Amino acid sequence: MRLLVIEAHPQYIGMFISGMVYKHTQRGDEVHVVALADAECLTNIRPQDELAEINKTEARAACNILGVSSIRFLGYPDTFLVNTHELRLHLSNIIREIKPEIIVSHWPQDTLSDFRETGMAAIDAAFNSLLVAGRWVEKYPSHWTKKLYAFQHPGLSVNFKPTTFIDISDILDIKIKAMDCFKIQIECNFSNDLEKWHSFILGPNRYWGVESGCMYAEPYAQMEIHEVHNNASSYLEV
Amino acid sequence: MRLLVIEAHPQYIGMFISGMVYKHTQRGDEVHVVALADAECLTNIRPQDELAEINKTEARAACNILGVSSIRFLGYPDTFLVNTHELRLHLSNIIREIKPEIIVSHWPQDTLSDFRETGMAAIDAAFNSLLVAGRWVEKYPSHWTKKLYAFQHPGLSVNFKPTTFIDISDILDIKIKAMDCFKIQIECNFSNDLEKWHSFILGPNRYWGVESGCMYAEPYAQMEIHEVHNNASSYLEV
Amino acid sequence: MRLLVIEAHPQYIGMFISGMVYKHTQRGDEVHVVALADAECLTNIRPQDELAEINKTEARAACNILGVSSIRFLGYPDTFLVNTHELRLHLSNIIREIKPEIIVSHWPQDTLSDFRETGMAAIDAAFNSLLVAGRWVEKYPSHWTKKLYAFQHPGLSVNFKPTTFIDISDILDIKIKAMDCFKIQIECNFSNDLEKWHSFILGPNRYWGVESGCMYAEPYAQMEIHEVHNNASSYLEV
Amino acid sequence: MRLLVIEAHPQYIGMFISGMVYKHTQRGDEVHVVALADAECLTNIRPQDELAEINKTEARAACNILGVSSIRFLGYPDTFLVNTHELRLHLSNIIREIKPEIIVSHWPQDTLSDFRETGMAAIDAAFNSLLVAGRWVEKYPSHWTKKLYAFQHPGLSVNFKPTTFIDISDILDIKIKAMDCFKIQIECNFSNDLEKWHSFILGPNRYWGVESGCMYAEPYAQMEIHEVHNNASSYLEV
Amino acid sequence: MRLLVIEAHPQYIGMFISGMVYKHTQRGDEVHVVALADAECLTNIRPQDELAEINKTEARAACNILGVSSIRFLGYPDTFLVNTHELRLHLSNIIREIKPEIIVSHWPQDTLSDFRETGMAAIDAAFNSLLVAGRWVEKYPSHWTKKLYAFQHPGLSVNFKPTTFIDISDILDIKIKAMDCFKIQIECNFSNDLEKWHSFILGPNRYWGVESGCMYAEPYAQMEIHEVHNNASSYLEV
Amino acid sequence: MRLLVIEAHPQYIGMFISGMVYKHTQRGDEVHVVALADAECLTNIRPQDELAEINKTEARAACNILGVSSIRFLGYPDTFLVNTHELRLHLSNIIREIKPEIIVSHWPQDTLSDFRETGMAAIDAAFNSLLVAGRWVEKYPSHWTKKLYAFQHPGLSVNFKPTTFIDISDILDIKIKAMDCFKIQIECNFSNDLEKWHSFILGPNRYWGVESGCMYAEPYAQMEIHEVHNNASSYLEV
Repeated sequence: MRLLVIEAHPQYIGMFISGMVYKHTQRGDEVHVVALADAECLTNIRPQDELAEINKTEARAACNILGVSSIRFLGYPDTFLVNTHELRLHLSNIIREIKPEIIVSHWPQDTLSDFRETGMAAIDAAFNSLLVAGRWVEKYPSHWTKKLYAFQHPGLSVNFKPTTFIDISDILDIKIKAMDCFKIQIECNFSNDLEKWHSFILGPNRYWGVESGCMYAEPYAQMEIHEVHNNASSYLEV
Repeated sequence: MRLLVIEAHPQYIGMFISGMVYKHTQRGDEVHVVALADAECLTNIRPQDELAEINKTEARAACNILGVSSIRFLGYPDTFLVNTHELRLHLSNIIREIKPEIIVSHWPQDTLSDFRETGMAAIDAAFNSLLVAGRWVEKYPSHWTKKLYAFQHPGLSVNFKPTTFIDISDILDIKIKAMDCFKIQIECNFSNDLEKWHSFILGPNRYWGVESGCMYAEPYAQMEIHEVHNNASSYLEV
Repeated sequence: MRLLVIEAHPQYIGMFISGMVYKHTQRGDEVHVVALADAECLTNIRPQDELAEINKTEARAACNILGVSSIRFLGYPDTFLVNTHELRLHLSNIIREIKPEIIVSHWPQDTLSDFRETGMAAIDAAFNSLLVAGRWVEKYPSHWTKKLYAFQHPGLSVNFKPTTFIDISDILDIKIKAMDCFKIQIECNFSNDLEKWHSFILGPNRYWGVESGCMYAEPYAQMEIHEVHNNASSYLEV
Repeated sequence: MRLLVIEAHPQYIGMFISGMVYKHTQRGDEVHVVALADAECLTNIRPQDELAEINKTEARAACNILGVSSIRFLGYPDTFLVNTHELRLHLSNIIREIKPEIIVSHWPQDTLSDFRETGMAAIDAAFNSLLVAGRWVEKYPSHWTKKLYAFQHPGLSVNFKPTTFIDISDILDIKIKAMDCFKIQIECNFSNDLEKWHSFILGPNRYWGVESGCMYAEPYAQMEIHEVHNNASSYLEV
Repeated sequence: MRLLVIEAHPQYIGMFISGMVYKHTQRGDEVHVVALADAECLTNIRPQDELAEINKTEARAACNILGVSSIRFLGYPDTFLVNTHELRLHLSNIIREIKPEIIVSHWPQDTLSDFRETGMAAIDAAFNSLLVAGRWVEKYPSHWTKKLYAFQHPGLSVNFKPTTFIDISDILDIKIKAMDCFKIQIECNFSNDLEKWHSFILGPNRYWGVESGCMYAEPYAQMEIHEVHNNASSYLEV
Repeated sequence: MRLLVIEAHPQYIGMFISGMVYKHTQRGDEVHVVALADAECLTNIRPQDELAEINKTEARAACNILGVSSIRFLGYPDTFLVNTHELRLHLSNIIREIKPEIIVSHWPQDTLSDFRETGMAAIDAAFNSLLVAGRWVEKYPSHWTKKLYAFQHPGLSVNFKPTTFIDISDILDIKIKAMDCFKIQIECNFSNDLEKWHSFILGPNRYWGVESGCMYAEPYAQMEIHEVHNNASSYLEV
C-alpha cells in the first residue's frame, strides 16, 4: 500500500502523524511526503534561507527514522499558501505519479490559512486526479485515491472530530526520536524544554488514547472526497 | 463473529438490514435477533393476537432465508416501548448471554418513539453489559461489545448520517426473497403492489449505492457507546 | 413566473432537476438555463472542442423536451471555475436581464470545486443583483430574486439536507426522455448501460420519494440569500 | 383548514403565536387550542386554585379576541408534565377528533421541561394518530396531520432555528389586545410595566421581521413528523 | 461565592474537576458537593455495602484536600439514576438551601445513562429553583443560579465542546493528591498502576492545555439554563 | 485596554456595535476603527465619490459621539472585497501598530461577500500578527490579540450564534444619537422613517435582551483564532 502525506510545512510528518506513519512503514507500506512550503517564517533566530535548509534537513532526519520512502519540498512561500488551480494541478500530478491508496493532509477548518488551503488543495487534487481530459492528463493517467484522512493540529483545528484512532502505544520511543529531530522548533517555541515539547504532542495522544480505549493514540478524520467505487464494504467492521 | 440485532418489531430484519445480515451469515458469522414487540398494531386487517403470530411467523421465514441463528420475541407492547431500566436489564442479560462483537439497532433520533426507545435501550444495554456488580451480574458475567451500528428507517430517521456502507449488489435476489416474506405488510401498506414494495427498500439502497460508489448499498451509522479497549486500530483503513 | 438555472456544466438540467423544470414549464412558467463551462473535460473519447459541441447539442435537446425557454453557454474553462467578481458580475447581469423569481444552482458544499464555486457564485450574484450603484448597474437595473434553491449531486453533495421535495411521479417518462439525450455521458460513465444510468438518477429520486411520502421526488434545499421583503408569509403552509 | 395548538400552559396562545392565529381565523380557518396545565405555579400572588381559574379566564378572553374556535384545559399538574404514553394517547384522541391539517406546539429543545415534554408529546401524538390498531383507535379513526410547527419562547428555546415567518405587521393592534389579557403575568413578571411587556413580545417579532424582510414577524420551525403522503409539492415555492 | 457540584457518583470531585475546585476554595469560595449514588456498582472486589462506605470515605478525604465545604451522599441506586420530578425536587431543595452562584455537573450527552440523567436533572433543578409556587417552595424560597457548567468524562462525553478552560498548571501536586485518594478505583480499573491513573486524568488536562494555551487545563462547557437577569455583561471580556 | 474594529464599510460602527463601543470608551478603553471600503455602492442618490465622502463624514461624527480614538478608511473597492494576502498583510500591520487586546469584526458566514471576506481577513490577520519572520515583520514586531469577537448583521448573518451579550440598556440615548448620524442610509434604505430605522437596530437589541435577561443587548460571538497563552482562566466566571 502507498500513503501520501501532503503537509503545509516540513515538520508535521515528525509531530502529529509520525506514529501512524511508522506503523505503516513497519508493515511494508510506502509513505511519501510532500511539503508545500519550507517553514521559512517559523522563527527569526536564523535567516530565512538558512532556516529553510535546516527545516528540510530536520524533516529528512525524521523521515529516515520513520522509514519514509520519499519527501519532496515544493518551495511555495510560507504563510502565503493558496488553493489555486496551479497548486491543485501540481499536487494532482504528484498523486498521479505516486498513486497512493490513502492521502493524509490538514483539517480544512484549521485557523491557520496555510493549513486550510493545504487541506482543501489535497481534497481538490485527489478529486482532480480522477479526470481523464485536459491539462490534468498532460503528464500522467488518472488515479483513484481510495481514502483521504485529515490530521489535527491541537490548538488550531476548529471543530475537529476524529473518526479513526491509531494506537501508537507500542512505538512511543520511535515517535519521540522523530520528534526530537526538530531542534529549531524545540528551541524557538519550547525554549529547549524537551519535557514540554514531548507533552505538547504526547499529551494530546494520551487524551485520544483515553477517548479510544488505549494508552496513546493519534486521531484522524476521514474526509468525503468522491463517489469512489470502493467506499462500500462487504461487512461491518469490528 | 457474532452479531446481535435489536429491533423494535419483527420485520426490519427482512427489510433494511437483510443484505448485511446475509453477507455475514454467508461468511460464517452468527446473527441473532431480538424483537421487542410483535408489531400487533401494524394493521387492523387481523385481530391483534393473530397478527402477532403472523408477524412472528413471517420474521422466522425471513430469518431462515438469511441464515439467522436465532430470533427471540420479547413481547413488549407495540407502540408503547420505553427505555426503562427493566428493559435495559433484560437486553443486557441477552447481550451477556450471546456475547456479540457487534450490535445493530435503531437510530435514536427516529420520529417513531418505539424506534427511539429501542435505539437508546440498545446503547444503554451495551454499556451496562460492562458492569461487574449489582443486579447486572445476577445471571451472566460482563461482556464488552466492540461496535454498535444504527440502521436507517427511510422516512423516519431524522438527521441520519451513515458512516459505513455495505455493498449488497451481488445478493439482491436473496434480499428480495427475505422482503417478500412480509405478506401482511405488503398487503396493508403497499396494497400488494410488489414493485412498490421492492422499490421502497431498494430505491434507498440504490441511492446509498450512488453515495458510496456501488450499485446497491445498505447504510449504517457507527454509534459511540463506551471507552472500549479496542476502538483504536493499528493502521489507517483503505 | 421565471426560474433561472445556473449550472457548472450543461448536463445537469437533464439529470437531477429535469422533473421540477418540466412541472414548471408545463404550468406556463419560463425556465432559463446558464451553463458556465462546456464540460469539455468530461471524457477523453472525443477531442475537447468536439466534446464541447456535443455536450451543448445534447443539452439543447433535453431543454427542448423539457420546454426550457433558453439556454446559454458561457464558455468558462471546465474544472477551473472560480467564484471571482468577474463571474459574479457576469451572472448578475444575466439575473438582472432575465429577472427570475427563483434561481436554482449547485449545493455550495459539493466536493467538486466547480460545483462549490458555481453554487457560491449564484448566491453572490443573486445578492449583487440588488445593488443600485457602481459597475453592477452599468447594464441593467437592480432585481430582487425571491428564492434560491440548491440541488443535490448524489455522491458529491456533502451534508446536503433538502427542505423541499418536488413530486415527479407523474412525469417520469419525460424525465427519462430528457436523461437519455446525454449519450456521451451514458457511454463514458455508464458503458451504455441504460438501466444503470436510469437508476443512477431515479434510485435517488425513489429514495427522496420515500423520505417525502410519494413515489419519486427531486430534493431541493432553500438557501439563505438576503433579507428579502417577501420571505415572510401570511399563513402557515399546509 | 383546521389548526390545533398544543401548549403547556394557557397563556402562549396570546403571546408568541397570536399573530399567526389571528391571520388564520381571519381568513376562515378554525383554530383549536389545548392547554395541558393551568399554569397554577406561575406566581404566588394568588392561591393556586384561584390562579388556575384566572389563567383560564384570561386565556379565554385572548381566544375570543383572536377568533379561536375552542380552548380545552386538560388539567395536568403544572411544572410536572411528562411525555407519557397516557398523555400521548390523550392528545392523539384530541387530534383524531379535531382532525387538524396543522399542529403548532413547543420547541422540543426548550430549557423548561414542561415545554420539552409538551413539544415531544405533540410530535409523538401526531405520529400515533396515524395508527389503525390497538388502544389508539378505541375512540376515533386515524388521522394524518400534514405539518407540525414549533414556536419559540425567546430566552428558553435552545438552538431554535425557524423555517417559516408569518408577517404580522398589519395586525399588531389585535396582537397587543390579546397580549393585554394576561394581567396576572403582566403583574407578576413585568411589574405592570406595559411597555416592557409589549417589547418582550414585539422586540423579538421586530427582530424576526428584520431577519425575514418585513416589519414584524412570528417565527416557526417546521418539525419532521412522519413519512406523509403529502410532504412533496408540485412546484418550487416563491 | 458558592459553587455546587452535582455528580452521579462520589469520585469525580477528585478527578475531572478537582483543579478548578481547589482554585476556587483557595481564593475563599465555598464549594459544596452532592453525590447522587454511592458508586456501589463500581467493582465487585468488595461487597456493595462495604464499597459504598469506602467510596464515601475516599471522597471525603479528597474533599478535605480540596477545601470543600460539604459533601452529601443522596443514596440513589447506582446505575439506575433517572431524572424524575422527585429527583429534581430533591436537588432543587438543596440548591435553594445552598444558594450557589454556579452549579457544576455532568455533560447531558454522556454515553453512561447515570451521567445523562444527572446532567439533565441539574439543569432542570436549577430552573425549578426559580419557581415561587407549589411544591417547589414548601421548604425554601426561590433562588437564581447564575451559571451552570458541565464537565467532561473523557471517553464518555459525546460531542463535548468546552467554552471555558481553567488553568491548573500551578496546582498539579494538589490535584494528584486528591486523585490518589481513590484507591479502590485505582485498584480495580488501573491495576494499581499509578502512572496510568495519573495520565488518565492529566493527559486530557495537557491536551486541553494545548488547546487553550497553557500547560494543564480542565475544560468546562457553559450550559443554557434560563433567561437570567445577569447573563449580559457590561464589557467584552479579554 | 485597546479594541480594534475591522468593518467592511464605515457605518456599522454606529449601528450594530455602538453600544458596546461606548461602554468601553466610557470606562477608559481605546477603540480604534478600520473601514475597508467607503460604501460607495450603498445607494445611487449621490455620485460615488461624493457618497464616499459623506459616508466617511457620517462615520466620523458617530465615532465622535462614541468616544472612538481613531478611524481609518482603507479605500478598498466596495462590493469587491477579497481576503487576499495583501489585505491580510495590510490589516496585520495595523494590528501590530495598534496592539489591541480585542478585535471586533464581521461574522464569516454572512451572506454578503464583503462581510465574509472582511471577517475571515480579520481572523487571518490576527493570526498573522503573531508571526516573527518574513514580510510580516518588515514594519512592526509581532502582537498577540487575546480575543476576536464577531458581530451580527441581522438579516444577513447565517447561523450566527452569540456567546456574549453586552447590556446597553442604560445608554440607549447615546446609541440612538450615533445611529442618527447615518442620514444617507436612513434616506435611501428607510425613506427617512426614523422610527423604522431605530427599530431595525433596537428591535434586534431587544430580542437579544430577552435572550440574555436584560432590556437591550448587543450580541457577539467569540471566534477561535489561535492557541493563545491566555485563553485559560483561573476561575469559572459568574
